[in-house]
Amino acid sequence: MRKMNLKPMMNPHSVAIIGASRNPDKVGHVILQNYINAGYSGKLYAVNKEADEIMGVKAYKSVLDIKENIDLAVIAIPAEFVPQAMEECGKAKVKSLVVVSGGFAEIGNNDLQDKLVSVANKYNMPTLGPNCLGIMDPKSREDTLFLPTFKLSRPQVGGVSFVCQSGAVGSTVLDLIAGEGFGLSKFISYGNAAHVDEVDILSYLMDDPDTKAIIMYVEGIKRGKEFVELARKITKKKPVIILKAGRTAAGMAAARSHTAALAGNYEEHEAIFRQFGFTVAEDLSELLYYAKILSTESFPSGGRTAIITNGGGVGVITADAMASTKHLTLADFTQKTKTALRKVMPPLVNITNPLDLAGDAGEERYGAALSLLSADPNVDMILVIALFQTPGADSRVAAKLISAKEQLDKPLIALSIGADYTKMHRIMMESAGLPVYDSPSSAVKSLDALLKYAKYRNGK
Amino acid sequence: MRKMNLKPMMNPHSVAIIGASRNPDKVGHVILQNYINAGYSGKLYAVNKEADEIMGVKAYKSVLDIKENIDLAVIAIPAEFVPQAMEECGKAKVKSLVVVSGGFAEIGNNDLQDKLVSVANKYNMPTLGPNCLGIMDPKSREDTLFLPTFKLSRPQVGGVSFVCQSGAVGSTVLDLIAGEGFGLSKFISYGNAAHVDEVDILSYLMDDPDTKAIIMYVEGIKRGKEFVELARKITKKKPVIILKAGRTAAGMAAARSHTAALAGNYEEHEAIFRQFGFTVAEDLSELLYYAKILSTESFPSGGRTAIITNGGGVGVITADAMASTKHLTLADFTQKTKTALRKVMPPLVNITNPLDLAGDAGEERYGAALSLLSADPNVDMILVIALFQTPGADSRVAAKLISAKEQLDKPLIALSIGADYTKMHRIMMESAGLPVYDSPSSAVKSLDALLKYAKYRNGK
Repeated sequence: MRKMNLKPMMNPHSVAIIGASRNPDKVGHVILQNYINAGYSGKLYAVNKEADEIMGVKAYKSVLDIKENIDLAVIAIPAEFVPQAMEECGKAKVKSLVVVSGGFAEIGNNDLQDKLVSVANKYNMPTLGPNCLGIMDPKSREDTLFLPTFKLSRPQVGGVSFVCQSGAVGSTVLDLIAGEGFGLSKFISYGNAAHVDEVDILSYLMDDPDTKAIIMYVEGIKRGKEFVELARKITKKKPVIILKAGRTAAGMAAARSHTAALAGNYEEHEAIFRQFGFTVAEDLSELLYYAKILSTESFPSGGRTAIITNGGGVGVITADAMASTKHLTLADFTQKTKTALRKVMPPLVNITNPLDLAGDAGEERYGAALSLLSADPNVDMILVIALFQTPGADSRVAAKLISAKEQLDKPLIALSIGADYTKMHRIMMESAGLPVYDSPSSAVKSLDALLKYAKYRNGK
Repeated sequence: MRKMNLKPMMNPHSVAIIGASRNPDKVGHVILQNYINAGYSGKLYAVNKEADEIMGVKAYKSVLDIKENIDLAVIAIPAEFVPQAMEECGKAKVKSLVVVSGGFAEIGNNDLQDKLVSVANKYNMPTLGPNCLGIMDPKSREDTLFLPTFKLSRPQVGGVSFVCQSGAVGSTVLDLIAGEGFGLSKFISYGNAAHVDEVDILSYLMDDPDTKAIIMYVEGIKRGKEFVELARKITKKKPVIILKAGRTAAGMAAARSHTAALAGNYEEHEAIFRQFGFTVAEDLSELLYYAKILSTESFPSGGRTAIITNGGGVGVITADAMASTKHLTLADFTQKTKTALRKVMPPLVNITNPLDLAGDAGEERYGAALSLLSADPNVDMILVIALFQTPGADSRVAAKLISAKEQLDKPLIALSIGADYTKMHRIMMESAGLPVYDSPSSAVKSLDALLKYAKYRNGK
């Protein structure tokens, strides 16, 4: 398998932005501004034929004039000028490239894309794109995304890397992730995959210590054999969640029209994904749902699940949803647990699973239930429903769930549904590392996916 | 079928709050405060044994001291005192009651609940509850919900009424509805259904001109025969979306423990629901998704759907999701439409369905596409994807979609996924009457549900 050195691209100490501009309508302006706003920790250079300085950053006529080590050049100029700019990068010994410019194979300009690939190979410069958003890393503050932060929120630092072919899909999911308070290690949008492709990126992320789990959106996979070889290895080390577009004939036709990639037969792909332990998502939201739980690295030994709730009806709906999963069952608490629960709970609380703590339940009842169910050998996983509309639920309940998560050696997730006040608590819990869901079905599907992956990884 | 007069309860001109209190921890305090904050348009009386005045509202020792016509008394006092308070209401000729107090059949106090029913019957006072949240009406500003507005947002005025047995389910869905900018006609949480039940409420809403569609959450249906009789009539007049808890053995057991209601056999229920044109939801979020589209009263003549997008990948995923529905197909545009689209669209736009307007598409491209596809006889419904992270999408695109919705005689929905900037536009569009979805699967499932209901109503 070919091995590209993606480190200078993924963690650059110096970046040149070719096409940086004073004109706020230009892509190169937004990219430079995002590097500045994010507080990028490395050295920053602007390349522009007409300016000496842009937004306080020194500008050069050509990358050849910089005369310093450049780990990464971000190219944001019209497609026709890209090969020439790449030539200059090659001569300047730039270590890697991200070409955000569109106008290549995706609109039939195959010759121009071939030229791009031949320059990349000539100088041995790993090149991401073209027609991509590039890379965003909340830790190093690398940010080649040409979308302003007021439109597209950036997530905090976390343990999941997101590999995405399409820029539009990438930006919407990235925005969703940021809005939920979920953290990301790296976001990589690779567009036409002319040079660096999904196999190269996955190889890199497999050994990246900052990446605990990977989510990916692909439209086509070019090097099927290498992909399979890699898949076999990677899922034994870390979870990979995948959404492949073109699942149906209609979708496949649409995918063909959208990129130059061949969509391939979905059934074959899916069978391979599942065989090698990938977690398959069927909708954009599932990418995020599964990432939340799989990145916790807390794996269950079975599917016996306890449900704690402060709203009986939502407990019932969740039990309903659980019955439609493949591996989950409602845990049967031990007699010891039942007796202990009966002692600490008020009479109106029935000692059953789901355990309905009632609408006036506060941190004490949640704390007692969590502590007793954590210790119950019949309970493999815990799903806590906290409805913050109820009289008893407040930030102390959220804090109790967070501390339970920190202490627990069993998987624990929360389910909270609602608007502003709830959203605030959701973000609080999610930011503290407790996976939070917004519907019974997404919560139980995610526990089911976790158990499935845990079984695969244990060779069962 | 018995006919209760629910008008004084649903649209009261005068309300007495029994158990109104100065103590902010008391349910009666929150209820009185909510009536005051909401700007309730009718006359308001407080009943409290110890105060002369509470928050500026004159207080009486007993409802008997008020000596004015009272359409509704809201009872928020400990369960044991409820029958006596109801006796006084009966003597004072109060026209209807909402008993929010818990502590009746749901915790085994069947005798106390029987007493409540007998007093309600003795004085012929329709009584909602006990153990319920009661009623919220954004138009009349009736608001018996004992949950403060900072925890539970209240929705704006709209055309959907929401009937909900469980208080916890009711409040979470209500909060979701408010957070999305979706409007409601009435929210009715009926709890133990000791006296007024789902059949009485549905009968009322069937003839309520402010109610264009109904969503309901039930745990058990008491009067099955009457329910079926009513169902047959109501779905020919307005759509009813139903979520019944206890779909599975696990859920049914949980439901039995949660309320005194018998959950019944779900398969039987579901078959009846579907036979009589109910739209069946399987998760809380589906209640809202289906309500959005079904309340527009715009019904399609077929399932040929056009997808417009500014992100190719999301178009592909949506086409995938569409293929898994029962009735939807990708519309095959007429040659006339294709020619016209080719003329107005830039070369990079492929004239296919999904129609990918590209990431730089602004109001002009959206406007042109909407206008041409509206006129295409091969298109029954339009699903517009507007990703607000992209360079071209802004508030003018949202405004264009809203005006298209106003002019169009075909169903039109929007799909926008993302965080803050997107959320702002989602609320803007939803508030203006354009149904907005947050995932491809929820959007296509909702169009499918709309078509199914349209066919039922047309007798197909």
